[in-house]
Amino acid sequence: MKVVTFGEVMLRLSPPGVERFVQTDSLAMHFGGTEANVAVSLSQLGLDANHVTRFPDHALGRSAAGYLRKYGVSTQYIQYGDGRLGLYFLETGAGSRASQIIYDRADSAFSRIKADEIDWETVLQDASWFHWTGITPALSQGAADCLLAGVQTAKKLGVPVSGDIVYRSNLWQYGRTPQEIMPAITECCTLVLGNKALFSELYGAVGSTFQEAGRAMMQRFPTIKYVTDTKRNSLSASHNQLSAKLFNGETIFKSRVYDIQPIVDRIGTGDAYMAGLIYGLLTFSDPQRAVEFGVAASALKHTIPGDVNLATVSEIETLEAGDSSGKLRR
Amino acid sequence: MKVVTFGEVMLRLSPPGVERFVQTDSLAMHFGGTEANVAVSLSQLGLDANHVTRFPDHALGRSAAGYLRKYGVSTQYIQYGDGRLGLYFLETGAGSRASQIIYDRADSAFSRIKADEIDWETVLQDASWFHWTGITPALSQGAADCLLAGVQTAKKLGVPVSGDIVYRSNLWQYGRTPQEIMPAITECCTLVLGNKALFSELYGAVGSTFQEAGRAMMQRFPTIKYVTDTKRNSLSASHNQLSAKLFNGETIFKSRVYDIQPIVDRIGTGDAYMAGLIYGLLTFSDPQRAVEFGVAASALKHTIPGDVNLATVSEIETLEAGDSSGKLRR
Amino acid sequence: MKVVTFGEVMLRLSPPGVERFVQTDSLAMHFGGTEANVAVSLSQLGLDANHVTRFPDHALGRSAAGYLRKYGVSTQYIQYGDGRLGLYFLETGAGSRASQIIYDRADSAFSRIKADEIDWETVLQDASWFHWTGITPALSQGAADCLLAGVQTAKKLGVPVSGDIVYRSNLWQYGRTPQEIMPAITECCTLVLGNKALFSELYGAVGSTFQEAGRAMMQRFPTIKYVTDTKRNSLSASHNQLSAKLFNGETIFKSRVYDIQPIVDRIGTGDAYMAGLIYGLLTFSDPQRAVEFGVAASALKHTIPGDVNLATVSEIETLEAGDSSGKLRR
Amino acid sequence: MKVVTFGEVMLRLSPPGVERFVQTDSLAMHFGGTEANVAVSLSQLGLDANHVTRFPDHALGRSAAGYLRKYGVSTQYIQYGDGRLGLYFLETGAGSRASQIIYDRADSAFSRIKADEIDWETVLQDASWFHWTGITPALSQGAADCLLAGVQTAKKLGVPVSGDIVYRSNLWQYGRTPQEIMPAITECCTLVLGNKALFSELYGAVGSTFQEAGRAMMQRFPTIKYVTDTKRNSLSASHNQLSAKLFNGETIFKSRVYDIQPIVDRIGTGDAYMAGLIYGLLTFSDPQRAVEFGVAASALKHTIPGDVNLATVSEIETLEAGDSSGKLRR
Amino acid sequence: MKVVTFGEVMLRLSPPGVERFVQTDSLAMHFGGTEANVAVSLSQLGLDANHVTRFPDHALGRSAAGYLRKYGVSTQYIQYGDGRLGLYFLETGAGSRASQIIYDRADSAFSRIKADEIDWETVLQDASWFHWTGITPALSQGAADCLLAGVQTAKKLGVPVSGDIVYRSNLWQYGRTPQEIMPAITECCTLVLGNKALFSELYGAVGSTFQEAGRAMMQRFPTIKYVTDTKRNSLSASHNQLSAKLFNGETIFKSRVYDIQPIVDRIGTGDAYMAGLIYGLLTFSDPQRAVEFGVAASALKHTIPGDVNLATVSEIETLEAGDSSGKLRR
Amino acid sequence: MKVVTFGEVMLRLSPPGVERFVQTDSLAMHFGGTEANVAVSLSQLGLDANHVTRFPDHALGRSAAGYLRKYGVSTQYIQYGDGRLGLYFLETGAGSRASQIIYDRADSAFSRIKADEIDWETVLQDASWFHWTGITPALSQGAADCLLAGVQTAKKLGVPVSGDIVYRSNLWQYGRTPQEIMPAITECCTLVLGNKALFSELYGAVGSTFQEAGRAMMQRFPTIKYVTDTKRNSLSASHNQLSAKLFNGETIFKSRVYDIQPIVDRIGTGDAYMAGLIYGLLTFSDPQRAVEFGVAASALKHTIPGDVNLATVSEIETLEAGDSSGKLRR
Repeated sequence: MKVVTFGEVMLRLSPPGVERFVQTDSLAMHFGGTEANVAVSLSQLGLDANHVTRFPDHALGRSAAGYLRKYGVSTQYIQYGDGRLGLYFLETGAGSRASQIIYDRADSAFSRIKADEIDWETVLQDASWFHWTGITPALSQGAADCLLAGVQTAKKLGVPVSGDIVYRSNLWQYGRTPQEIMPAITECCTLVLGNKALFSELYGAVGSTFQEAGRAMMQRFPTIKYVTDTKRNSLSASHNQLSAKLFNGETIFKSRVYDIQPIVDRIGTGDAYMAGLIYGLLTFSDPQRAVEFGVAASALKHTIPGDVNLATVSEIETLEAGDSSGKLRR
Repeated sequence: MKVVTFGEVMLRLSPPGVERFVQTDSLAMHFGGTEANVAVSLSQLGLDANHVTRFPDHALGRSAAGYLRKYGVSTQYIQYGDGRLGLYFLETGAGSRASQIIYDRADSAFSRIKADEIDWETVLQDASWFHWTGITPALSQGAADCLLAGVQTAKKLGVPVSGDIVYRSNLWQYGRTPQEIMPAITECCTLVLGNKALFSELYGAVGSTFQEAGRAMMQRFPTIKYVTDTKRNSLSASHNQLSAKLFNGETIFKSRVYDIQPIVDRIGTGDAYMAGLIYGLLTFSDPQRAVEFGVAASALKHTIPGDVNLATVSEIETLEAGDSSGKLRR
Repeated sequence: MKVVTFGEVMLRLSPPGVERFVQTDSLAMHFGGTEANVAVSLSQLGLDANHVTRFPDHALGRSAAGYLRKYGVSTQYIQYGDGRLGLYFLETGAGSRASQIIYDRADSAFSRIKADEIDWETVLQDASWFHWTGITPALSQGAADCLLAGVQTAKKLGVPVSGDIVYRSNLWQYGRTPQEIMPAITECCTLVLGNKALFSELYGAVGSTFQEAGRAMMQRFPTIKYVTDTKRNSLSASHNQLSAKLFNGETIFKSRVYDIQPIVDRIGTGDAYMAGLIYGLLTFSDPQRAVEFGVAASALKHTIPGDVNLATVSEIETLEAGDSSGKLRR
Repeated sequence: MKVVTFGEVMLRLSPPGVERFVQTDSLAMHFGGTEANVAVSLSQLGLDANHVTRFPDHALGRSAAGYLRKYGVSTQYIQYGDGRLGLYFLETGAGSRASQIIYDRADSAFSRIKADEIDWETVLQDASWFHWTGITPALSQGAADCLLAGVQTAKKLGVPVSGDIVYRSNLWQYGRTPQEIMPAITECCTLVLGNKALFSELYGAVGSTFQEAGRAMMQRFPTIKYVTDTKRNSLSASHNQLSAKLFNGETIFKSRVYDIQPIVDRIGTGDAYMAGLIYGLLTFSDPQRAVEFGVAASALKHTIPGDVNLATVSEIETLEAGDSSGKLRR
Repeated sequence: MKVVTFGEVMLRLSPPGVERFVQTDSLAMHFGGTEANVAVSLSQLGLDANHVTRFPDHALGRSAAGYLRKYGVSTQYIQYGDGRLGLYFLETGAGSRASQIIYDRADSAFSRIKADEIDWETVLQDASWFHWTGITPALSQGAADCLLAGVQTAKKLGVPVSGDIVYRSNLWQYGRTPQEIMPAITECCTLVLGNKALFSELYGAVGSTFQEAGRAMMQRFPTIKYVTDTKRNSLSASHNQLSAKLFNGETIFKSRVYDIQPIVDRIGTGDAYMAGLIYGLLTFSDPQRAVEFGVAASALKHTIPGDVNLATVSEIETLEAGDSSGKLRR
Repeated sequence: MKVVTFGEVMLRLSPPGVERFVQTDSLAMHFGGTEANVAVSLSQLGLDANHVTRFPDHALGRSAAGYLRKYGVSTQYIQYGDGRLGLYFLETGAGSRASQIIYDRADSAFSRIKADEIDWETVLQDASWFHWTGITPALSQGAADCLLAGVQTAKKLGVPVSGDIVYRSNLWQYGRTPQEIMPAITECCTLVLGNKALFSELYGAVGSTFQEAGRAMMQRFPTIKYVTDTKRNSLSASHNQLSAKLFNGETIFKSRVYDIQPIVDRIGTGDAYMAGLIYGLLTFSDPQRAVEFGVAASALKHTIPGDVNLATVSEIETLEAGDSSGKLRR
């Protein structure tokens, strides 16, 4: 089953263990980006994942593509050109000390993408799903335009579209507001990840509960069949509680709550949920099962270093079935 | 006090920290094997431990012997010959993600051992204890025969024998069943580690409780003076609860329950218990003390990377005395 | 604001992670010493910290000075001469296994310091604070004499003086007792860190509670305005509870209690408290605020590898304000 | 341009730097196998390389495939099944100390391949080249049969075939001799890498010079258009001289001689030559150019850690053009 | 003796050893920049080096300053503000494989410096030397303006000025040419590092030999007392030959030629020469001695990992005196 | 064949690769000491080597003993007591940059050894050789006395004794001169390693050539049957030439000259020679063969990290036979 994701991939550089930046003299390399993280997860789950992005045409850009391929993601639609590789520096916290990120992604090769640089008809041919996030339209006019072309093509071809409408106010530096840009993209969506505050702020879809706000979204955007969100209770950098909910306009499906301790790596756990949910919706007829699968996937991601979820279907199903005993498997 | 153990030693290869196999480009090396782990533990506790095995006659086999010697185990009775070094690949889990092992031990130099390759009369001369496990007779006819010769010699020389009758169904590939092989070996035992299910399955020694099943074992095998077992409650890969019990045919001696968090390395914790118990039975007149010492040893092993328990008598006694405060020792 | 600390700096050598000494073939390097740890903390908090010590005049001594400079501590008053660099070997424990330290600091370049080797008038010119600990006078007559000259100069110049009167009985090898040496030094102090047992043992300042013993200290040493102490409940090497109290002769200011889990590195957490308290007393008019700031600083230190606290004012204030959620900061 | 290679891929495990096995406690991981090395090289040179093999169906087998994909090799035709992952342990020498390899590849998943397990018609569809080596038929009857089916299909489809007829006498354990097996395979070849001793020993193709022996090969096997070989002068483990020659039945094309110092990693340098030569023959009309390209590629491989050549066309052409200055490229 | 340098400091990220980018999953961190490299060298030689730059006001910028302080360079004049930390990625070659650099320095905090952001009167107060390079005016108008203000202040205060007029055509992106910008800066120089091609291209100072071109420079820029250059013969990435020459308008002083093998790290070797020459001119009355000291310093830098020369005066003098035996010093 | 060595074992701490002390934040651990290095070499060559020393009774002392055992050296005669573990810090050079050592060995547990602490009659029972060096009597009166007791016992028991009379003037701090101490020890020797300058300085054994001085030694000390020395031509820290000679009072046996490049680790190469020579004299009837074996052993040690020679008889004989090609051994 072919799935397609679109977005920037960054090089993540982080001190070993829980050292601070000033202490270290080496940095571990991972690659990640919210949409590519979803692609890698879906590839691990057995789908034919294709990530679309634009990399600088140098050894680091080629390495980033190699990283995706290693984890089974097809890189055949990736473009190479000018601009730099986006970076982020991550310092991992512990206990009461928060992790912190220094972004260094301005003027990346991806942000220089042109509206027509991707042949979406070819890319989305025979696809079963397309996923995007609110990071992409925040980066540049070109990225926003290219994404719009993508979701519109998906809609035209009948490919379901999911959008994580995450809003980062320190992005959006190119002169447009999310209120101007996001609605046209959201119009093509089947599934939206967000909370009621975002629904209201970005689209004026107001409701006093998640369900009500979700229903308002569905009224404004008739293609939307599902809204979803995760709920995280941060007890410390090493201890979180996590659950999720999915609303189909009628019923709210709530997952069990996971107590997660210790946390190995929090980055990409939201993307792991999204991937698990997409897999669930594509595979199971039961929305409850899909949201349970998604949140179990996300819970496992917390135990895996790096941005991407390398858990398998079997591992997720074991946890979903209630076995969190961590018993040695021989 | 001379103690003797017999069994395969494997090279363990594991990604750093809690990385997955697919993520790593280097593997930490440890050596281990359930019987050799007992030998190393006993050596750390001050006994004169001798491990008997068969290694390939190449640099890796010689390195494995060096590893044992480093930890004080005498390697004077080790044989070298053809065959490979048994391996296992360990991926260490965390929280809800289980650790997993890929075994690669078929056709090892040890499995090619011949029945008469070890001069047991010499090896067991003046020994105070002999220890074996159910892994060995599962590997090959030669290993089973050689072990049988060993325990029979021990019995003849009056050397107490302990057996951990662990049963791994994916071993036992050489055409015989444990029911055919194990009884003759068990007949020479003083102490058996196992649970009532195993007592029943392997020997038909049935009982509705551990005590009853143990008593059935003692009836079938009159040399047995003690049966013992540990009880582990796996809350997650990082959090377990552990206790043990020892039954002498009359009284059941139960240890306190340890809450173990975090778990650094679970491998070899059962062997650490066995070594602690053997040390306790050899040293203390009090079976309660012996079982408490054993389970405290095992609890400490959970904090030590690698297969072997490097805790000292003093550390174990401190914990056994109830001090789990982990206060800095200067 | 210029602050001055005085004491030995040692090279700390520790196996990676929680390995035991016998397992490792490499040792991580940190530098630390209780007074220098205070200096680094104060530098991170924005003060102009100056550490005074004596190093061997070779590449390792120069490296130690470079380490202090890196973290913003001025090394302009450091002397170089004969003798060795003090060392300590640290094995970090986990759970029920305690960390342990092997000291190797005898005959260090610092212990060979002469009474008049430091020009205290210059060093303490315009200083706002001077800090010492009971380690220094325990090392050698020269160190004790030099410290005495320092605190007396501080008193003369009106520079507030804090002393952590820690008593290590295995030091004090040069023929004098702390009872002979410490009182003259303590006479110049504004703030003393210690508990009632120490107040009694070292100075005969007896009281049935911390407050009473503190009041006895203030009677014997009229310059003392504050006595302070931390309280640690060690549940395991990985889990502690921590609080502190400050007494000004009238009111006792008690901090909240922090539950600290996991512990990354316990070394230097007392020094982190002292630095936080000094910063608080210099910056806030409110003693309650100062003690809360100090204990929050110490709590954060438990999450940072090495001897020194690299937490910033902003991080400490966030924790002090009750946010221990460890939420990712972007 | 699609190229296909077929053969076993092993996990290589080697101590860091030039440490001996007994010294190390970690092993660097690479994957390699003579035919897969050729595939990776060809992928780096821009061709569409496809490697065909059989891996164990576990995390390590999947990791091996990921490694190939990372370097751009298509893994779509790879089979997964029972058996183990072949291993080899490499200790890298220096100066007068030779590198040494301990092979541990018996009974691998690849060696268990069946004659009809690969659908060669599909695999070789539209291929421009097929490459095999004498390792494969030495491993098992199944491997030999499957290879024979492959080369015969290639011949049928008109795909040029190259064979590196390397002979390792310690392989060939399954009861057949290379003299029995190799001729039928060689009958389908266009290009053969070997020396006159091998031509004589394996095929009875005798000649007093490389050219004469090559001509004898072409007489016995009329499909052969080229024979080729490299010449290595080993001055030490760190210093070699290397050249190559190619004979087309009429003209002998000899490359320049490279003085190679220091040698970073010798493994896979022959495969790098083969890949460079294949690329050259597919790309240039000039055999001299092809052999020069091949040997320059091989020279560069000596500077790259691991089994595979990661040099680019541009780097090889720079060296081939005579620039071995190693000047920094910005 | 106070010396001042001005320019950008970048974070250098490089794979361990001689791995390629695509192979590594960790990157070693160093900091460097041609002018700061000179400052660190001069600090190691005992001078009071002050580096002036502008860093981003975040943990990485603060770490860069800490790096300079560690090596004894004063960071008191450093500014902090908006913009990113310039980066470069270095892949270290070996033998015939060249090292390569991917720069990622656009829009750095340094390039955003304003002409009047540095109080040059204060910075250059009591300075004995000021050093700049052609990288700085190539980065931005602000950097060029700020540099011009610096050299003009130096000239006014009578501080000798050295300029390495290195020309990188891929910089100079802000709309001005070096021919427009460089002459005004060069007008304040005492010492210029460059070759005759650069003298001609940048300033129209033509000559058929280095001496003639140097004399033309001195005619155009009467403050110039010395021109200097190094000569490097690159035999491979691991083997170079190096010498230098200094011309004072009358006499040409040529150094001995160093045969350098192996090369550990070539980066910063030119800066090491410059620092050695500056030290020599400030310390020795003999220009021959100065150039010999400079080239010996540079030769030693080739043996030191990272961008900066950590050789001491004593080590340089030993080499300068002809002892390149590398005999162990105890 | 039992051989005995006696002397201090130190913990060696060195930065990774060729980093300088100030650059590193981790140190590689090795253990070494000139006499123990000889023991490890002899153990690798198949002899039953026993090292006698005194270690501190803590985890590091126990680790040092474990290190010796790992390499096959018996530690049964080692004493444990007070005092510290001697250390040395090694910075490895490259090319023209010399390696340097900072010793930190004063007041070690070994230096506190008492004259009668070793039961030499037992230790030397059935021994075939005893080896000492001039480091030991330089450390303390106790060490000198204990050594004297050892060699005298050896002489009494007819055990051949070799002494490397190395003289380090910065040792000998306990009030005696080597001229006072060394002759009585040397009186028991069969084989002495030294040069004519040392023979003259320490014993007044004067001669204008090595042979003449050696003959003078044999006249003064009639037990001496052989004198030997190595000759090293240091071209750089990475390139040496090495040979050796052995004189039996009549004939001088000179080895071939080895050109050694690159040098991985120079430490312990003299000890490797001594061990090779001892092995040769014990094994071959031909002194020429013995000296050739010794220098080939030493040449190989230059390729091995750490203090000890891990070359095997087979590797040494291959090199001795002229094969320095470093060809891969499979």
